[in-house]
Amino acid sequence: MRTTSAWQSSNGSTDLERVRIERRDLREDDLAVRVDYCGICHSDLHMIHRTTDGTLVPGHEFTGTVTAIGSAVTGFAPGDQVAVGTIVDSCGTCRACLAGRENYCEAYPTLTYNGTDRIDATTTMGGYSREYVVRESFAYPLPAGLDPAAAAPLMCAGITVWEPLRAAGIGPGSRVAVAGLGGLGHLAVKLAVALGAEVTVLSRSADKEADARALGASRLLLTTDSDQLAGAARRFDLILDTISATHEVKPYIDLLDIDGTISLLGFFGPIPANVMDLMMGSKKITSSGTGGRKGTAELLAFCGEHGIGADIELVPSTQVSEALDRLERGDVRYRFVLDLADLDEK
Amino acid sequence: MRTTSAWQSSNGSTDLERVRIERRDLREDDLAVRVDYCGICHSDLHMIHRTTDGTLVPGHEFTGTVTAIGSAVTGFAPGDQVAVGTIVDSCGTCRACLAGRENYCEAYPTLTYNGTDRIDATTTMGGYSREYVVRESFAYPLPAGLDPAAAAPLMCAGITVWEPLRAAGIGPGSRVAVAGLGGLGHLAVKLAVALGAEVTVLSRSADKEADARALGASRLLLTTDSDQLAGAARRFDLILDTISATHEVKPYIDLLDIDGTISLLGFFGPIPANVMDLMMGSKKITSSGTGGRKGTAELLAFCGEHGIGADIELVPSTQVSEALDRLERGDVRYRFVLDLADLDEK
Repeated sequence: MRTTSAWQSSNGSTDLERVRIERRDLREDDLAVRVDYCGICHSDLHMIHRTTDGTLVPGHEFTGTVTAIGSAVTGFAPGDQVAVGTIVDSCGTCRACLAGRENYCEAYPTLTYNGTDRIDATTTMGGYSREYVVRESFAYPLPAGLDPAAAAPLMCAGITVWEPLRAAGIGPGSRVAVAGLGGLGHLAVKLAVALGAEVTVLSRSADKEADARALGASRLLLTTDSDQLAGAARRFDLILDTISATHEVKPYIDLLDIDGTISLLGFFGPIPANVMDLMMGSKKITSSGTGGRKGTAELLAFCGEHGIGADIELVPSTQVSEALDRLERGDVRYRFVLDLADLDEK
Repeated sequence: MRTTSAWQSSNGSTDLERVRIERRDLREDDLAVRVDYCGICHSDLHMIHRTTDGTLVPGHEFTGTVTAIGSAVTGFAPGDQVAVGTIVDSCGTCRACLAGRENYCEAYPTLTYNGTDRIDATTTMGGYSREYVVRESFAYPLPAGLDPAAAAPLMCAGITVWEPLRAAGIGPGSRVAVAGLGGLGHLAVKLAVALGAEVTVLSRSADKEADARALGASRLLLTTDSDQLAGAARRFDLILDTISATHEVKPYIDLLDIDGTISLLGFFGPIPANVMDLMMGSKKITSSGTGGRKGTAELLAFCGEHGIGADIELVPSTQVSEALDRLERGDVRYRFVLDLADLDEK
């Protein structure tokens, strides 16, 4: 066994403790990765709160440097910069896996943390740590030129918004709206703009207009202004709703053009809308869960080509608990990324 | 003014009375249509129950014979067989209308009954009557060879299921499931089969298997059998859910393949599902509301070519109240159609 340092939550506490954890010895197709940067995802908070009995090492969007490789590894060498996302294994044989959509593996993918390893049945521990051991199939070369800290959030926040943009065929001429300007939302704006779409930010706060424009959006639509809402009826082909709390979605559905789609990406619970809202325009509600190898590789290539990373607040990993608390209050612009170098010091 | 006989509901009663009603004198682009056959739609019941204060002449899927034409009518002549559906006018100038999707007119289409005429502001009265006066744009030639009684339900039940089949690109190789084997559902099976899809009926009653097969379905999946449900996980590209009462849809969503769509066509209220149900497979919930001129003409041509009509119980219009009561109990196979010839007798 290998050991490394990590930040661990116990019994639902956001006051994480520095601990030593074990990583498996390298299997033949494994990489050992020194974790350099790990984003803090809203779902980390969610999982911490849910784990009221037990411990948890969160973190499922990180970049790092390969330090060792298993005997059968062919795609990576020590020193390579890599990125790892929300899943680290899958059955490899179902239709979803064969299509490169391992996130929808019929046997359920192995999650990067709080998952169950398919070989030794241990519980996976995430990227809030200095080392991660991962199958090479689920590590991605980091494109040259991308800032590895800013790239880390691409691996969850980025792919989560990329997939519905691609599924809807967004490109030049498309009209996209983004609700919620957080970790997911700000990347949604950047990616949709880079795909050629006209992008509108939907917000309850006019203060965010300058931020929206700085990210490339054409405008901000103030959702508290009923005149603006009425004037934008049937305006959009796709709405990416990244608001991380349940909320009425009919006002957004009304902004969709005929055949338009709203993708609910920020919450998991009951769908707060009526069938009638969809009926008057053949509108669709969807959602999606991160991405598989195919989409993730495609996203990274696109971001490399367009120079897209997240806008981040980079903090020493010793400040992880403070960062979680600030995230809980929505006080981040737009994604916290932990710099894990401080775990080297004793 | 012209006068004709009709069946009218008062104050929410399903005990309809025979009354004399007025129809407008023909405008230059109007047809006078002798209504021969009018289907009884579940939404007729719904509207009757909602109209607790006032009167209503239902009926929005009918076929008949042109008896007179306005001075500017070019597409029809007296004696022509025509079909009329759920809408009889629209603004004609919005993007939806210009695309032949008048059912989604931005200024709201004029409904065949309980709508407001765009010119004289009178309340429209439906096809439970012996004559209807309609703009020629919203009457469709009935294809030769179709039984006009069996064709009447195509104009609401048929187009309601046709549009989502076409939106999903259903054809050879597609896997379609239909939940609810009533007026909409039985036509959904016939149309999907004729489009080349493999069709499964989802039912709580194994008794319906022979009926399902007679309509062309490959099989019936018993939704009360958890083994059958589990075995059919991710089996379908499209589910047309025509059940006319609110019900949990997660069990159906689980039957959808990745990127699959469930179209909720039988009820209007809250969507009984969670975002999470959609997230694990990029699945979509949609609905749609009948069809416009383009889709309706396409459906009629398709049905003419394939000899598709509804399986109906044809009843004299004097039995309309009994038919409504039986429909309320789900006791019909599969659609009641009123024969309005008896309105000629005094």
